[in-house]
Amino acid sequence: MTNIKEKYSLVIIGAGPAGLTASIYASRYKVDNLVIGRAVGGLVFEAHKICNFPSEEEITGRDLTEKMKNHAESLGSSILMDQVSRITREVDGFEVSTEMGKSIFAKTVLLSIGTEHRKLNLPGEEKFLGKGISYCATCDAMFYKDKTVAVIGGGNSAHTASLYLSEVAKRVYQIYRGDNMRGETVWIDQLTNNDKIEILYNTQVVGIKGENRLEKIVLDTPYKNQKEILIDGLFIEIGTIPRTSLAENLGVDLSENRNIKVSSSQTTSQKGIWAAGDITTNSNGLRQIVTASSEGAIAAEDIFKFLQVVE
Amino acid sequence: MTNIKEKYSLVIIGAGPAGLTASIYASRYKVDNLVIGRAVGGLVFEAHKICNFPSEEEITGRDLTEKMKNHAESLGSSILMDQVSRITREVDGFEVSTEMGKSIFAKTVLLSIGTEHRKLNLPGEEKFLGKGISYCATCDAMFYKDKTVAVIGGGNSAHTASLYLSEVAKRVYQIYRGDNMRGETVWIDQLTNNDKIEILYNTQVVGIKGENRLEKIVLDTPYKNQKEILIDGLFIEIGTIPRTSLAENLGVDLSENRNIKVSSSQTTSQKGIWAAGDITTNSNGLRQIVTASSEGAIAAEDIFKFLQVVE
Repeated sequence: MTNIKEKYSLVIIGAGPAGLTASIYASRYKVDNLVIGRAVGGLVFEAHKICNFPSEEEITGRDLTEKMKNHAESLGSSILMDQVSRITREVDGFEVSTEMGKSIFAKTVLLSIGTEHRKLNLPGEEKFLGKGISYCATCDAMFYKDKTVAVIGGGNSAHTASLYLSEVAKRVYQIYRGDNMRGETVWIDQLTNNDKIEILYNTQVVGIKGENRLEKIVLDTPYKNQKEILIDGLFIEIGTIPRTSLAENLGVDLSENRNIKVSSSQTTSQKGIWAAGDITTNSNGLRQIVTASSEGAIAAEDIFKFLQVVE
Repeated sequence: MTNIKEKYSLVIIGAGPAGLTASIYASRYKVDNLVIGRAVGGLVFEAHKICNFPSEEEITGRDLTEKMKNHAESLGSSILMDQVSRITREVDGFEVSTEMGKSIFAKTVLLSIGTEHRKLNLPGEEKFLGKGISYCATCDAMFYKDKTVAVIGGGNSAHTASLYLSEVAKRVYQIYRGDNMRGETVWIDQLTNNDKIEILYNTQVVGIKGENRLEKIVLDTPYKNQKEILIDGLFIEIGTIPRTSLAENLGVDLSENRNIKVSSSQTTSQKGIWAAGDITTNSNGLRQIVTASSEGAIAAEDIFKFLQVVE
């Protein structure tokens, strides 16, 4: 749909809040820019209820990211739905290659590719994906109407997954390895006051069983004297890991937690490459829509200044 | 209108985007909080057109801050329209005193009091305030229908003031001391393509003259061989300075530019006091609504963690 050129002053990789906000700012600065993303919104797209983006009392991830995409496009930004497979340094810029065979020259690159779902790494986890196992309650809850499901995790993503699932499922177990939930107190209060939800503290899932689809999970701590519980669906909400393979190939420095190390102006260790959003070491690790957006804005302004000097 | 208590876990001083977002996050964490501000929105309230807050293609400052205020109040935040006159450290917290005679105990304080308009510091500037001199085009443009006005400055605030004034005034001079405008390229393009606007580069206003109200300004560089030009209104848009007097009295460390020095978690040099928004050294000095909001969110999360330990 978008008419893609061969060359841009800035190619933004990742179409979540960081990338879209960077594009909005870049376009306001008249920096010729292209956003490349597998899907608009990144992980935010999956959120069924966002209550803390300032000015929006309640909005879905889909609606909020759609608004950001429309905002960017209204300013002339181009957005390409594709996946970047490789970035190669060239003289005065980079060659950005995509899965769909496009090759684009970029004077500067912003990495805002965010994070992906952390996996349990248990045998059967991959086999039952889409057959009882999911990493996205918003996407898959409707398959579990009047069924029994379990959510693994103790942070905001797990809490909102449990609450959302309780609206359709018959019964929700939330399984958490610790005894002190993380995340917003509002969500925790709602969880503990919800009759359909039962929280299993100090418990880990150590096995996944089933024939053609998921049938039961094995716990390390017995629940009602049973180590196995029958469930129809398992939602794994145990956090995210940075998507750093593109950055590593470029020689960009990472932190111990494998986030991209950035300066206060969002520059990375490699000249011509900036990073913004959940993938970086900035924003005190808070990883919110508003913090990702802010990093995108800061990066865009710094890229604008950089291009004024080199152009 | 708001029922104010004697004691809060968190008192947020300043009701701009940083303070309101901090309040939204604090309320989501169930941290009992009060926002005290002279006016909702801070300087943002004056902006007549905001085009870079992600997800809002175009919105007034008044509407955006109203949405943030409603968002905070919907979550149970209390907002007091008043001005803080003094903050005094006490055992385990602070006493916050207001102009209207309130005295509130705060376990923690967030300073998000932003900036105020920078003045020219010329004789007559104060005398003609409201009689030809203004620091807010959005507030006062309508008084200059079919009149001649001048805007001083070369950044985004000056650009948007000139553009807005050009919609009502007969003629707009934009006076800038440099020869290379700062701010977004989109605005600069619009300025230079606007027949009603004339830009005077490398020029400073060195005098203000008039009887009962402003009549003319004196330039250091002649314009059409004249050092004086007749104008009806003068809009001073030469930037902002941090409002740091409350911080100084508390012994909070400031930077050379008199911003409040903060860590990555928005803590100041004084225990129990955080700062967020335009007043701080963070966000690479970008000072946008989205960066202020982000700092507010980061501060609120850190305050939540701090209170969990001390409470």
